[in-house]
Amino acid sequence: MKRYVVGLDYGSLSGRALLVDAETGETIAESVSEYRHAVMSECLPDGTRLPTDSAVQHPQDYLDVLSVVIRDVIEQTNITPEQIIGIGIDFTAATVLPVDQNLTPLCFQPRFQSHPKAYVTMWKDHTAAPQAELIDRISERTGSKHLSYLGGKCSAENGLAKILCILQTDEEVYNAAYRILEAGDWITMLISGTDRKGYNYAACKEFWNPVLGGYPSKEFMKALDPRFESVVEDKFGGDTVSYEPCCGTITERGAKLTGLAVGTPVSIPYVDGYCSMPACGVIKPGKMSMIIGTSLCHMVSSEEYTNIPGIFAAVPDLVYKGYTTYEGGQASCGDLYAWFLENCIPAAYTEEANDRGINLHKLMREKLMNTKPGASGLLCLDWFNGNRSVLGDPDLSGMILGLTIHTKPEEIYRALLESSVFGTRRILEQLVSGGIEINEIIACGGIAHKDEFMMQMFADVTNRPIRVCASTQAPALSSAMYAAVAAGKARGGYDSIEEAVDVMAKLLDKTYYPNPENHAIYNKLYEQYQIVHDTFGIHNKVMKRLREIRAEGV
Amino acid sequence: MKRYVVGLDYGSLSGRALLVDAETGETIAESVSEYRHAVMSECLPDGTRLPTDSAVQHPQDYLDVLSVVIRDVIEQTNITPEQIIGIGIDFTAATVLPVDQNLTPLCFQPRFQSHPKAYVTMWKDHTAAPQAELIDRISERTGSKHLSYLGGKCSAENGLAKILCILQTDEEVYNAAYRILEAGDWITMLISGTDRKGYNYAACKEFWNPVLGGYPSKEFMKALDPRFESVVEDKFGGDTVSYEPCCGTITERGAKLTGLAVGTPVSIPYVDGYCSMPACGVIKPGKMSMIIGTSLCHMVSSEEYTNIPGIFAAVPDLVYKGYTTYEGGQASCGDLYAWFLENCIPAAYTEEANDRGINLHKLMREKLMNTKPGASGLLCLDWFNGNRSVLGDPDLSGMILGLTIHTKPEEIYRALLESSVFGTRRILEQLVSGGIEINEIIACGGIAHKDEFMMQMFADVTNRPIRVCASTQAPALSSAMYAAVAAGKARGGYDSIEEAVDVMAKLLDKTYYPNPENHAIYNKLYEQYQIVHDTFGIHNKVMKRLREIRAEGV
Repeated sequence: MKRYVVGLDYGSLSGRALLVDAETGETIAESVSEYRHAVMSECLPDGTRLPTDSAVQHPQDYLDVLSVVIRDVIEQTNITPEQIIGIGIDFTAATVLPVDQNLTPLCFQPRFQSHPKAYVTMWKDHTAAPQAELIDRISERTGSKHLSYLGGKCSAENGLAKILCILQTDEEVYNAAYRILEAGDWITMLISGTDRKGYNYAACKEFWNPVLGGYPSKEFMKALDPRFESVVEDKFGGDTVSYEPCCGTITERGAKLTGLAVGTPVSIPYVDGYCSMPACGVIKPGKMSMIIGTSLCHMVSSEEYTNIPGIFAAVPDLVYKGYTTYEGGQASCGDLYAWFLENCIPAAYTEEANDRGINLHKLMREKLMNTKPGASGLLCLDWFNGNRSVLGDPDLSGMILGLTIHTKPEEIYRALLESSVFGTRRILEQLVSGGIEINEIIACGGIAHKDEFMMQMFADVTNRPIRVCASTQAPALSSAMYAAVAAGKARGGYDSIEEAVDVMAKLLDKTYYPNPENHAIYNKLYEQYQIVHDTFGIHNKVMKRLREIRAEGV
Repeated sequence: MKRYVVGLDYGSLSGRALLVDAETGETIAESVSEYRHAVMSECLPDGTRLPTDSAVQHPQDYLDVLSVVIRDVIEQTNITPEQIIGIGIDFTAATVLPVDQNLTPLCFQPRFQSHPKAYVTMWKDHTAAPQAELIDRISERTGSKHLSYLGGKCSAENGLAKILCILQTDEEVYNAAYRILEAGDWITMLISGTDRKGYNYAACKEFWNPVLGGYPSKEFMKALDPRFESVVEDKFGGDTVSYEPCCGTITERGAKLTGLAVGTPVSIPYVDGYCSMPACGVIKPGKMSMIIGTSLCHMVSSEEYTNIPGIFAAVPDLVYKGYTTYEGGQASCGDLYAWFLENCIPAAYTEEANDRGINLHKLMREKLMNTKPGASGLLCLDWFNGNRSVLGDPDLSGMILGLTIHTKPEEIYRALLESSVFGTRRILEQLVSGGIEINEIIACGGIAHKDEFMMQMFADVTNRPIRVCASTQAPALSSAMYAAVAAGKARGGYDSIEEAVDVMAKLLDKTYYPNPENHAIYNKLYEQYQIVHDTFGIHNKVMKRLREIRAEGV
């Protein structure tokens, strides 16, 4: 009997199941379900206005994914649920929601349906900015070390900041919550009956640190807000953080929710970004994996456990036992190019595309091919969603410099691509300067598969060979690998993620090697990039001030 | 018998005659003729490739204008040439050409038809950048004071730099030239027979300085290039600079060229930009005139004769006797907005305009109206053609800062308009800090008449009331005023430009008063503008370095 594993990947706009052959790592079937409410940034379903910088999701959408996509891959392939030996889950993070004792989201109660904080506060919700600043201040005052392992600066995307924000903006919701959970933990608890939290979220998003003895102290929490003193006991159920690869098995409730068989092993959940590593075969130090999609996420392992300024998570044993995983990120990438194509391409180009019977995207790629490094005189900063690494400042913004009245749209487009790649080089150099070895980059995500031009640019700018993950769904595949480890060798899986990676992770044949001529030109541009990066990121406050002026006018 | 004057205005792409009632200042007729060869930047008519940064014109185009437009206004109105009591000419500058003893351009000779420097080197030709730098170096080494009255920094647009460039890049042309003249002097000489140069060009573009005794010394010229020692004697016919309002009268040759009557008084010629002042009624200190078109030009008078860093011309008696005229400028304005509308407006907007049956320009104006100062978080630098004042650096470039993936095209458009206006405020403040009083601004040029939104912005940002010249052709009208002065009172004109201004200059009724609320917001933005201005204009060399990298790759 063939054995399969399911990787369940919850992204920002949809959830996806991958049915994977546990023996070969081959993807057999795939099913995607879009979130009906997508991201709510203006108002709740009942019309309640949301505060600025909100990004709220509806937990029913996650349940809908759960009820559809696994059943769908089973149906597509005519296998029996019993052939599935494990399920693994990855989820965006920090993406938190308050639930009652029965794990039902508070927003399902009529009395909370107009409370934004009773819904899911999504990772890209930035309403917790004041709480993030408070965490920075209190960390400095108390000398707490926890923050230094998360880049030295708290982000509005941090889970603890989001939970504190629930308390400080809607105490009624906070008090009513039996637990406030990462969505990935919530789904896992729902289907497996476990009451333990995965170490992945806790370590990356909630300041839980094995070296420092777990969560920050009660004194620290109290200093943030007296009402927050017992948050760990009250809202997490104590320090229940687990490193066990298998957190339980599918319960009756879980079987109903998913279509899986009762007793199927369930892996502990993972942060989606971290899930690039196993699928990319990135275990040993020296290789960096990189997800290139809406945003950019960089992951690398090292035997060293250290903290590097601006690198917002360094967590021991996070992905592989014995190695510390370091994470860097850029807050915009594909969404920035989409913005440009939607807002900045003139009608004449659209007409040209129509006349030639090709789409605008293809036309722009053709025009891009005619541009050369350094030839436009342009330089951009990709901070259109703020800077995640190494400045960790959501208030920074995008910039286009070097414009003349002869500048062409495709030149700006190229410069925007370059800005993403320069941003990656900056993060890579920060990691290297912190003692982390990076000799090769393995990329995954939509752009890695679709955009050879940009992949070559990554090689040319970073002077590293670039390879690409064979799977177009790396996080889901990684979750499937974790599922195989949850099952264990005896049930047809593997006893460690390393073993799973050996068999199941595959790369495309093609390697992008750096072009030395282009690298030399990019070095000159990168020198200027660094000046501009530091000018607006460190030396002056122009971008932050412009945001303040904007906010004052509202 | 009604008496008329003709103002002849040679712009960058066309020449224009205005027939003006000498008694009332009313414009009776107007005629425009486009230059057939427009601006040659790629190659000469015979296919000869031009060097990078060339902007060459064909002198035949100027002669064609001369033969058409005056005859046309006479024909339109059925007056006799004898009713025209004077003609005045303004021309772009420095726009220079080499001619033979008969004043025939060298490019008319077959042996020179492939020599770029035998044609007209137009003001915006930048091939003389090395010569401008040489002039800077020699000025510093010799301690020559001439440069300090032209902003302290020589531009590639300077006339002496252009003439030195002819010598150093095509000695054959230089040697064959009987004179190398400003095009405005050339036309005036052709029609009046005078051999004297107007002080206007000499003072603004060729370092002739009445306070310093005329042209720079022979030693200075020799230090620039030994072959340049006697440029004044050899190519200017000595120091023939004249302040006389009337330089002569129409000759037989002039009558044939223009259709005017022999004996008609001819005014000395003026730089077109300076010709905003009389038509705007700007005589006395305290008022600044401003031409807003393809580029921006600011003119103000003062009883003080001083040099102000970054203000590229300060010339005594330039426009009005007893007053020194100061000039500032911005190298791009209308052309920048045209670039944006052509290259950066998405097809969706074009479709919206089509669906609603309005043009794109109107649509964008509507969308602009919905934007507010400071609300976009954007800030731009308008240096898309380099910076003319107060940095005097053609290698600077444009910048857009504060972008997010929510930025809309109309927000960028507004920020570009603001960048022009902030640039003007920067120049205005430089003038004020140099002791020049500016309480009111009188604007002319296409944008002044067409764009109320932007005129209000000028008022709000500068905190000065703005009025607009009634004539849509201010330079041509000013030339007509000078023509009336050349004629003199006895012939139906005026004895001074002040008298002519009193009668002939008219403003529109409307005054744009500063809105204090907007001014307060713009003050905050302007503070950030200054930081960015100085960052890229003074403190770092990123923009210049990007140009170098670009040039290295060519």
